[in-house]
Amino acid sequence: MPTSPIPLITLTTDFGLGDHYVGVMKGVMLKLNPKLQLVDICHQLPSYSVSEAAYTLDAAYSYFPAGTIHLIVVDPGVGSRRRPILAQGGDYYFIAPDNGVLSLVWQREKNPTVIEINSAEYLLPTISSTFQGRDVFAPAAGWLSQGVDPRCFGPLIRDYLALDLPGSKLLKPGVLSGQIIRVDKFGNLITNITAEEFSQFRKQWGHKGFKLQLGRAGIKRLIGYYAQGQTNEACAIIGSSGRLEVVIKQQPADKVLGVGVGQEFSLMAIQ
Amino acid sequence: MPTSPIPLITLTTDFGLGDHYVGVMKGVMLKLNPKLQLVDICHQLPSYSVSEAAYTLDAAYSYFPAGTIHLIVVDPGVGSRRRPILAQGGDYYFIAPDNGVLSLVWQREKNPTVIEINSAEYLLPTISSTFQGRDVFAPAAGWLSQGVDPRCFGPLIRDYLALDLPGSKLLKPGVLSGQIIRVDKFGNLITNITAEEFSQFRKQWGHKGFKLQLGRAGIKRLIGYYAQGQTNEACAIIGSSGRLEVVIKQQPADKVLGVGVGQEFSLMAIQ
Amino acid sequence: MPTSPIPLITLTTDFGLGDHYVGVMKGVMLKLNPKLQLVDICHQLPSYSVSEAAYTLDAAYSYFPAGTIHLIVVDPGVGSRRRPILAQGGDYYFIAPDNGVLSLVWQREKNPTVIEINSAEYLLPTISSTFQGRDVFAPAAGWLSQGVDPRCFGPLIRDYLALDLPGSKLLKPGVLSGQIIRVDKFGNLITNITAEEFSQFRKQWGHKGFKLQLGRAGIKRLIGYYAQGQTNEACAIIGSSGRLEVVIKQQPADKVLGVGVGQEFSLMAIQ
Repeated sequence: MPTSPIPLITLTTDFGLGDHYVGVMKGVMLKLNPKLQLVDICHQLPSYSVSEAAYTLDAAYSYFPAGTIHLIVVDPGVGSRRRPILAQGGDYYFIAPDNGVLSLVWQREKNPTVIEINSAEYLLPTISSTFQGRDVFAPAAGWLSQGVDPRCFGPLIRDYLALDLPGSKLLKPGVLSGQIIRVDKFGNLITNITAEEFSQFRKQWGHKGFKLQLGRAGIKRLIGYYAQGQTNEACAIIGSSGRLEVVIKQQPADKVLGVGVGQEFSLMAIQ
Repeated sequence: MPTSPIPLITLTTDFGLGDHYVGVMKGVMLKLNPKLQLVDICHQLPSYSVSEAAYTLDAAYSYFPAGTIHLIVVDPGVGSRRRPILAQGGDYYFIAPDNGVLSLVWQREKNPTVIEINSAEYLLPTISSTFQGRDVFAPAAGWLSQGVDPRCFGPLIRDYLALDLPGSKLLKPGVLSGQIIRVDKFGNLITNITAEEFSQFRKQWGHKGFKLQLGRAGIKRLIGYYAQGQTNEACAIIGSSGRLEVVIKQQPADKVLGVGVGQEFSLMAIQ
Repeated sequence: MPTSPIPLITLTTDFGLGDHYVGVMKGVMLKLNPKLQLVDICHQLPSYSVSEAAYTLDAAYSYFPAGTIHLIVVDPGVGSRRRPILAQGGDYYFIAPDNGVLSLVWQREKNPTVIEINSAEYLLPTISSTFQGRDVFAPAAGWLSQGVDPRCFGPLIRDYLALDLPGSKLLKPGVLSGQIIRVDKFGNLITNITAEEFSQFRKQWGHKGFKLQLGRAGIKRLIGYYAQGQTNEACAIIGSSGRLEVVIKQQPADKVLGVGVGQEFSLMAIQ
């Protein structure tokens, strides 16, 4: 496993930025390793949304240097028996609760090594039942960045959780069902249809065009970049995370169309 | 005083993240000391809330490495005669306006050394009356991180401000009054009753149980971790900052119960 | 050009902090240069607001160490033919889309060297049409921080865009028109009238006083620091960015007065 000359840890949480939670996790890690480079991926995930954390991490993790430790704390089960885990997959380490937040990592990084973190030696001496980001996950990341062997943190496990995140489905020939999985800051609607799925759908069924029916909007135009859209026109675009998105030029598509995460839609080939 | 090999400064302000204010303070510090490690504790404190800044700092500061410089700028009196101060207490340095924001530090770190920052040598050459985070506090932190002796910043003072932050009160035998002092991102309601006060109250009066009357909610259940609560059930819990909290499983208790910071409540022993 | 011993890159975007966008840009840069110091200036600029980005950068950039690379990605034309540029002006580097976001830099740093970034060697191998912060701007900043000569990124250009940002205008003797250009986290209203313009106006016309008519508020008092204002009193003040501001003590002037960015007002000398 290649390592960076300067150890790098990223943080992805639903803690927000209005409290001391994220800062304290960083303090705990810097106490163990003052040379750390710390990068926030996102802290404003919807509270408790394991699936949105999974999608966010998926869009981000591979852009970091090999050897980066990705720390994810979206943890509705904090304090319960859910396990903290340390995974090594591809060029990266991941530290997270075993609640499915790494499900998309399992899809991309085959044969990960997954360890249950339970060695008291690498945790804070007192472990609260409400803030294990501070007491369990941050110390584990700090020690790992110091070069502690992953095997020292606990036993290998094979029954880690993989969520069945909703994929697109072929309802009938030429009709695909999809779902909005994230809304970004611009109000762009990110779907669960990947660029490859969309391309294959069009090749097989939709060479005459397509209609994406999302609420009352029937979207027929695929644009190459945002500014190509007309004012007020909802368009489809292949977004930067390799997924089909619905966007409106310089307007928040979520508010204009009145839709959000979880909204289902159908994509129909024009015959 | 132990020092970190890499000097570390934390920032706690009410500046928000929508302006250039926090970034500029970091620029000023990095100009003085390019090797700094900078960590945000919180910038989204309610504007002008010295007490919420004090509680946030209290929950955070001791998790950082010894030698850390904690910079706090919640400063409604900026530009007036209130003094900028540099304090050394326990393993940490604190730089802040002398407006009581360090009141909880005074309670935990006995016999602090407190200095009024007034030596022009360590401030920016032009000092605005509206942004002394940039012109006074950041330069002082930058120079301190460079190894300048605290005594060089100005005279020792003993009359620094200690606020009388509202504590819990025994109203009559078996009845304690308390107050909500912070609401976190999850809507958890943090009270001014410490874990020790609660434990002692229960030992003395409430071995048959308790009732925490908060608005219309009568809370009788103490849970060990969030997921133990029932759906829609307001519960008490000992939170990660060592304070009694009122929470609802995966729901924002502040919105559901319609209460916020400053709300008073009573805690009654069941006889 | 002086350089910092530790290369420093700042980030100013309208990406918000609720997505992975900012984190991913940092990952891309750290992959190219693990020793970077990264500082956020602001990510919560109003979506697509090139002018507010220009004002924010103007208030911030000169407080950073010489050699700092300022990366600005407010880019409504992403994916279109607008050019990515690298500019060297005064002690700083700037990397941004050529959409006018550097207009105030051009006013302060005379004779900048401006280069169109088009050398594929220093960009990501695949360039999306929707996230060039990741694919174009971040890689360019990372390579520049590594010491790559600015001339290697592409050809010198002279026709870079300079916006005519709205300035104050003398409507008639003793009457100046102005505009609100930013509202900060405290609700302070920042105007396009600079401290020098205001001082000169008062010297020439207003030695008996002034009246700033903003909506229904007629503001006549200039204060030296926020706490000097009376409760509920709208006052004028010279703010920390060297511009005239309208503020109300410990209240959000934007909400109280019902005004926002773009609001015009007149400043009248009292005869």
